[in-house]
Amino acid sequence: MKAAQLHGPRDLRLVDLAPPVARPSEALIRVGRAGICGSDIHYFSHGRVGRFVPRRPLVLGHEFAGTIVATSEGVNEGLVGTRVTVDPSMPCAHCTYCRSGRYNLCEDMKFFGSASCDPHLDGGFSEYVSAPVANCYRIADHLSFGEAAMAEPLSVAVHAVMRSCIVPSKSALITGGGTIGQLIALVLRAFGARRVVVSDLAAFQRDTAFACGADLVLDAADADFQQTAVAASGGGFDIVFEASGSEAALAQGLAAARRGATIIQVGTLPASVTLPLNDLMARELKLVGSFRFANVFTTALGLVESGRVDVRPLISAVYPLTDVAAAMDRAVAKADTIKVQLEP
Amino acid sequence: MKAAQLHGPRDLRLVDLAPPVARPSEALIRVGRAGICGSDIHYFSHGRVGRFVPRRPLVLGHEFAGTIVATSEGVNEGLVGTRVTVDPSMPCAHCTYCRSGRYNLCEDMKFFGSASCDPHLDGGFSEYVSAPVANCYRIADHLSFGEAAMAEPLSVAVHAVMRSCIVPSKSALITGGGTIGQLIALVLRAFGARRVVVSDLAAFQRDTAFACGADLVLDAADADFQQTAVAASGGGFDIVFEASGSEAALAQGLAAARRGATIIQVGTLPASVTLPLNDLMARELKLVGSFRFANVFTTALGLVESGRVDVRPLISAVYPLTDVAAAMDRAVAKADTIKVQLEP
Amino acid sequence: MKAAQLHGPRDLRLVDLAPPVARPSEALIRVGRAGICGSDIHYFSHGRVGRFVPRRPLVLGHEFAGTIVATSEGVNEGLVGTRVTVDPSMPCAHCTYCRSGRYNLCEDMKFFGSASCDPHLDGGFSEYVSAPVANCYRIADHLSFGEAAMAEPLSVAVHAVMRSCIVPSKSALITGGGTIGQLIALVLRAFGARRVVVSDLAAFQRDTAFACGADLVLDAADADFQQTAVAASGGGFDIVFEASGSEAALAQGLAAARRGATIIQVGTLPASVTLPLNDLMARELKLVGSFRFANVFTTALGLVESGRVDVRPLISAVYPLTDVAAAMDRAVAKADTIKVQLEP
Amino acid sequence: MKAAQLHGPRDLRLVDLAPPVARPSEALIRVGRAGICGSDIHYFSHGRVGRFVPRRPLVLGHEFAGTIVATSEGVNEGLVGTRVTVDPSMPCAHCTYCRSGRYNLCEDMKFFGSASCDPHLDGGFSEYVSAPVANCYRIADHLSFGEAAMAEPLSVAVHAVMRSCIVPSKSALITGGGTIGQLIALVLRAFGARRVVVSDLAAFQRDTAFACGADLVLDAADADFQQTAVAASGGGFDIVFEASGSEAALAQGLAAARRGATIIQVGTLPASVTLPLNDLMARELKLVGSFRFANVFTTALGLVESGRVDVRPLISAVYPLTDVAAAMDRAVAKADTIKVQLEP
Repeated sequence: MKAAQLHGPRDLRLVDLAPPVARPSEALIRVGRAGICGSDIHYFSHGRVGRFVPRRPLVLGHEFAGTIVATSEGVNEGLVGTRVTVDPSMPCAHCTYCRSGRYNLCEDMKFFGSASCDPHLDGGFSEYVSAPVANCYRIADHLSFGEAAMAEPLSVAVHAVMRSCIVPSKSALITGGGTIGQLIALVLRAFGARRVVVSDLAAFQRDTAFACGADLVLDAADADFQQTAVAASGGGFDIVFEASGSEAALAQGLAAARRGATIIQVGTLPASVTLPLNDLMARELKLVGSFRFANVFTTALGLVESGRVDVRPLISAVYPLTDVAAAMDRAVAKADTIKVQLEP
Repeated sequence: MKAAQLHGPRDLRLVDLAPPVARPSEALIRVGRAGICGSDIHYFSHGRVGRFVPRRPLVLGHEFAGTIVATSEGVNEGLVGTRVTVDPSMPCAHCTYCRSGRYNLCEDMKFFGSASCDPHLDGGFSEYVSAPVANCYRIADHLSFGEAAMAEPLSVAVHAVMRSCIVPSKSALITGGGTIGQLIALVLRAFGARRVVVSDLAAFQRDTAFACGADLVLDAADADFQQTAVAASGGGFDIVFEASGSEAALAQGLAAARRGATIIQVGTLPASVTLPLNDLMARELKLVGSFRFANVFTTALGLVESGRVDVRPLISAVYPLTDVAAAMDRAVAKADTIKVQLEP
Repeated sequence: MKAAQLHGPRDLRLVDLAPPVARPSEALIRVGRAGICGSDIHYFSHGRVGRFVPRRPLVLGHEFAGTIVATSEGVNEGLVGTRVTVDPSMPCAHCTYCRSGRYNLCEDMKFFGSASCDPHLDGGFSEYVSAPVANCYRIADHLSFGEAAMAEPLSVAVHAVMRSCIVPSKSALITGGGTIGQLIALVLRAFGARRVVVSDLAAFQRDTAFACGADLVLDAADADFQQTAVAASGGGFDIVFEASGSEAALAQGLAAARRGATIIQVGTLPASVTLPLNDLMARELKLVGSFRFANVFTTALGLVESGRVDVRPLISAVYPLTDVAAAMDRAVAKADTIKVQLEP
Repeated sequence: MKAAQLHGPRDLRLVDLAPPVARPSEALIRVGRAGICGSDIHYFSHGRVGRFVPRRPLVLGHEFAGTIVATSEGVNEGLVGTRVTVDPSMPCAHCTYCRSGRYNLCEDMKFFGSASCDPHLDGGFSEYVSAPVANCYRIADHLSFGEAAMAEPLSVAVHAVMRSCIVPSKSALITGGGTIGQLIALVLRAFGARRVVVSDLAAFQRDTAFACGADLVLDAADADFQQTAVAASGGGFDIVFEASGSEAALAQGLAAARRGATIIQVGTLPASVTLPLNDLMARELKLVGSFRFANVFTTALGLVESGRVDVRPLISAVYPLTDVAAAMDRAVAKADTIKVQLEP
């Protein structure tokens, strides 16, 4: 079968591999659609993501949906033919984090298409993937594979929103209009936020946010960003989501937050950032990290299936798996692009 | 009456002033003891605290206890002779912050000995202060004015601890063994923390912490600080209290925190700090500001009165008000010193 | 001026009173519309509400909107002519409850049209009311007085929803389709609940709920209520709102809740109820009282103004104030009726 | 080996059974001490606990400690000889409850000595038990088996306390001075509660509570219970723990709670109770069920090991396993008895 395998920085090869075999409790899935995530871009550009360094060629991709084509012995054969989307999280289920409901922090997490676990698990940029049946979620007939493959990044957005606790009736700023930023805006809308503002340097990202229902979009480079943001929020935002990974954006977010506000850091920041953090103490802000997700995959899928979140405007381009190089270039360039997906 | 009035950076003058007159709902207090706080030191050293700049000579001091010597018309005269400690917070009671229980964030807060409100309110480095009766808390006979004057900084410590939510059975690191750091350690002990570790650069601060019940003290300059800290906490602390105001200490605290941990920033940081904040996202940490206090003054006073917190070892020196210059020098130098108090 | 004054059980008289005079910080309001609340019905039917017994003739009504026609000295005269809706809560602002953000529990609360405070405060079933300017909220031009007068009961609904903490993506059952039950359904919809089910004995209430956006309505008298409810919620509801005040409804709600669920009691129960409460322990349920509201009046008003909650279908009938007897009869009978309002 | 096997109501037989064999990942434990729990008493007295009805003779007991004498293949043999206490909870680790940290609500929980799971799992009233190694916690040398066997009921108490959220500085009433009530009092003391009051009908239970550190004990039959309780708490308790399972005690607890208070139901109530629950709404109380425990076994064990909780005064009697009949009679009678333990 064809698969897109990372061999090093900017060295992503289309290779022929033997299809995986479903192990006990697993189902073999023919991938219908797989999304390129920011971390896939990181692996491609830098050969690594932070301290996760692949030790062998790795098939990327952890956002995918497809059709079950075989099941291992003991697994209900009736599942063959079922259209599913896959939660890529396979925590150990027994450590302190897993036992207390925070399995996204599990130190022994297995994750598709990631070097965070050893041995690595090949991901969804491939014709076939074998996944635990428990991680496969049946999707409604009216849902396309493209939409279903968005359940994973949408879970990241829902988790980030949940980390801020109370959302209904609050005002929120989202710095960064990439996939996660856009999805957070959609989730906030669905969860009853009073005012949703998105900032980005790029016009396409701002236009998309506005089209998706943001009340206001701001150019992060605007000289009067701060004034406009504070005015737009009636004196400062209740919640800020930093989804760009930029130090400057985080600084803007801190400044635009009202006293007592919560700032959720979901973007990947540089190794070191410089910030006016005394303000955090003097205005009792909370800066809260949000990493992957836990306990919200069915929530995310439900939002898409029910139509309360429409992810279709975010799928900017679909490439055949055989054009993975072009797809990755497009994803890296980001011009007029939110999400790029692959179709094996 | 005598009072210590700030006229500018390092210009603290002992002056003669007319005693204040109790306004409606107020009581006139003869100050028995007043503590020198970190912010008093800031005012003295820099002539300001952040954006709070005195516009006229200001009597410092917001930690004080004394005896009611007169009441305004309409206030129960029977209060004369009562020994009290004073909560210096006078929020507006009507803004969004006040109405929702976070009156420490009130934008119209009046506060003794502070330039944060305009007109400023003269503080407790004085023979007499007039305070609202509602802010005066009767103290038990067995309590000295020195202990009672610690109710205010202890409130800051209790508030910081409350900001971390669940304390019992948790492990905690406190970076910085000044007054607030020491008080946090005492509060954590009283509130059932499992393991309390204090770090400081100075031996006196470490020794005091150990004598006050810390399980372990660490030299912040130790080469193997990180290793020792993680080992001491069984894999990382559940909660970190940054009480030194040092960028390096905050970085140590972040590194010594376990996944999912909470870091409380209660120390006053420099205007700009540089930190490896990506870790905050990748390990889902929370960095939470803690400013002054709300709704815990009686809790703090109760801790001292019941003996569950013994503040006496923290009172390093007492000077007559007329020696305020020497007292302030001692407080600034910090050598072998936690809390310095004045006695008019 | 005309006003509807309660003189005893079922003794509501239309009387002529001198109009009130605006005291300091108050504005005089010409009432445009006033809603009849369940507690008004209680006062009318029983002459009292629980332990609140009027000691003198009392003008009822605490849900009202109108136009400012005069202001007291010192209050901005420019407010004359402003269309406003009134938050009837006047807490003391200084007790423990007020200071900690739970001012709805204030033991010294003043409230329009209620015998809960002494002296009682005449309410909105009147041509004129004088209210603190701080309690008057300007309403958008497109909002009718009828809609604006719903901000108060909507606040009760928002508060009840907030008491359940996390709403987005949860399934909820509301037992009782009166005004508060219907408003809770609308709020849940606006706040992103996954599934909203309303039960009532009366078809009109069920039909209204369905028209207002409930996913499903259940007849509380149905033999297979329990089965249908559990099936509808996929194994039990995450949250139940008991808004009928019926013991049987609360029992149904407890049974229909999933393990670990929260049940909010917002309806007024009889003095004594019999329930299978051991289940509460064995399935770790939470039964949470919700009383009036705190800190959500602007949220409620914002929901109506933004159109995210449409209260118009709930206003079943409007009577001139002079027909208050007929209006009250209609409200008591409840047939084909959700909310009855008066127009002076 | 000898074991105490339940054959029906009041039919507990000392029988000879083949010792269990350690399955994969399990260790064989020679029981050192096993406590008789309230549910053991229920099984003995009624032949069942609520809807849990044994389908075959069942060895009771889920509070036990002992020594590992053998391990299954693949398990570290070095564990042989280790003194351990056993967490009897074996949740499925994969359902919604387990994944979200509330594994005590797992619908597929296995539990020693309980008919709640099918097939039932024989418990600790036995010479040997085989348990998953992951459930065995090494105990400190200075800890007796008797103390170590208290880690399980102490976990129930810690969980109940955690269900009330914020404990430090609060006032608490515990209705019922049985094992769980006494342990809750000890935990509250260790976690910094301001005031701990215990009520019971029996003098021995009250005396024990007082000896264990309660500030005050109340006779639940006292005519002026209510007055004394409210006075003792300064106007009503912040938290009430109902640990007696009595309707009358719960009613007393509700009445003695302050506005906005939390009542934790941890005792097993009758199938149906009659209560003045309207008060719950009007005073915004929370009635919160607490069932078994999750994520606190090591906390409980740590409290005992560190000496912060001393459980020894609660162990009223120890009987040889061969005297199980007398032991059970003593436990049922409760006279001058808190906890009865068995020693095989």
